[in-house]
This record gives sequence, structure tokens and C-alpha cells, in this order.
Amino acid sequence: MVKGKKTDFAEANCGIARSLKIIGDWWSILIVRDAFKGNARFGEFQKSLGLAKNILSTRLKKLVAEGILTVEQDEESPSVNRYVLTQKGQNLYVVLSALWQWGEENCFDGDELKWSLVDKKKGEAVPKLNLVARDGRVLGPRDFCIAMKNETES
Amino acid sequence: MVKGKKTDFAEANCGIARSLKIIGDWWSILIVRDAFKGNARFGEFQKSLGLAKNILSTRLKKLVAEGILTVEQDEESPSVNRYVLTQKGQNLYVVLSALWQWGEENCFDGDELKWSLVDKKKGEAVPKLNLVARDGRVLGPRDFCIAMKNETES
Repeated sequence: MVKGKKTDFAEANCGIARSLKIIGDWWSILIVRDAFKGNARFGEFQKSLGLAKNILSTRLKKLVAEGILTVEQDEESPSVNRYVLTQKGQNLYVVLSALWQWGEENCFDGDELKWSLVDKKKGEAVPKLNLVARDGRVLGPRDFCIAMKNETES
Repeated sequence: MVKGKKTDFAEANCGIARSLKIIGDWWSILIVRDAFKGNARFGEFQKSLGLAKNILSTRLKKLVAEGILTVEQDEESPSVNRYVLTQKGQNLYVVLSALWQWGEENCFDGDELKWSLVDKKKGEAVPKLNLVARDGRVLGPRDFCIAMKNETES
């Protein structure tokens, strides 16, 4: 187990803290979710999220500045911007899937949730994400820790 | 692709939105991270996070109310509370691992990050989380969608 001071883990040496600094608010993550769903125009995000224009505008600018979204011209209406996920933004699909699956398992009663993550090719539900060790063992919450990188080299 | 109205996806039918309603702020996630690291006392969280007492207190109460943390009496000092992850809270380790790995890959330069997720048993770095289909294919961001559950039944 690693104990960290604020200066260690609130920023400098924590992948979680640094991620949250970029996407760590409710609206930013829901904007990214909507971008995965195919929303791209300001008005589409606004309609989906029911968010005040100034708040949406601030969040979109931040996500562009952080390299999560990029701005493209709409081919049909050149005066309209499209906000599209960059590769860095697309890489967030694992985080969003983990959030979805945790919510699905822990935040709904019975069959209350009517939607599911579905494998497009087969039309089957996507199995739960597992953290898997190099030798194939599925790792539980007590099976791994955060350690100095040089400790991992054998 | 599924398009959702706010009423669909901001709450009722979105596992992501409902997750974020519970853990969707920076401090709550960092408190959960610290609980995984073994922090349990109010003072330990405060020292680690450098957070104002009233803010920390509000966040801890919310996490307890949501069933992420539970309060136990400290065996050494019975007047002191320990905040310990419930099963629901422990289930968040996949979300935290996904955030860590995304941060590790996208938010640090070169070998700037000195820490890594390590398999305790083998001392090896934990491989990147993958979303895997039932037939074993690794799914990319465009290989799955959110669909009505009955569409997934074949």
C-alpha cells in the first residue's frame, strides 16, 4: 500500500487526479458521452443535456483546450461548429463504460434500467469490464496497488 | 446509435449519469481513491487531500448516505470514526483503474509518472483494461453502442 501526501497524489503522481482535473465534472463527462452517441453541434448537446448556454460553452471550450474535443466545420452549414472527439477523447470510452457498468450494477433496482452496452457486431450485451493480470487472473479490488514504477521491474 | 432526451439519459436510463450523481465530483472520487489506499479516519483524508473540514465532512456524509462508505468505530480510539468502503464502494475499483490508466496514457509526458498499477501477487504492472465481447474480441469505441435491453436478446 502506498500512502501519499497531497503533493504526491492530488496531482503530480496520480493518474486519477490528473484525469479528474480534465474531465472531473459531471457535465464534462456527459458531454463526452453525448459525443460518443454522435452529438456534435452546440444545439444537440444543449437539447440532450438541458444545460444553460454559458455553462455548456465553458465546458466545450475546456474540453477543446484539453484536447478531448476538436472543432470542425459542419459540411452542411459551414458557419456551424461541430465538436468531435479526438483520439484522446475517444480513449475515454473505457472510463465511460466502467461508469456505465458500475451504475447499471449499483444504482438501479431490478430491471429498472432499460438500456445496455451492446456489441454492435453480434447484438449481444457487453460483458463486465475486468482488470486482468498478465497471467490472466481477474484482479479484485485488493489484488493490486499503486507502486513506484521501478518496483514493477523484475 | 441511440439518441436520448435529457429525461432519458440525464437520469432515468443512463448508468453513467446515475453513477455521476453519486460520485460525480472530484473530491468524492479522490476520497474513494484514498479509502482504497487504506485511509479511514477523517484526519487521514484531510491530510491526504488538503481539503477544508466542512467540505470533507459534506462529501463523507454523502458517500455514507449513498452506501459507498460505511462508518465503523476505530478499535484503538472508540470515539473516532473510520470510513470504510462498502461492497458497492469497492466495486468502484474498475472505474478508478480506468481513470488511472486513461490519465497515465493521456495526461503525462514520457516517464513523468512515477507510479503504476501493480499486481500484488506478481509485482508486475497491470495491463490496460479492455472491453471484451462475449467471443473474446477487444471492443474499440466504435464497436459498441447503448441499446434497449430487449434488442440484445437473440
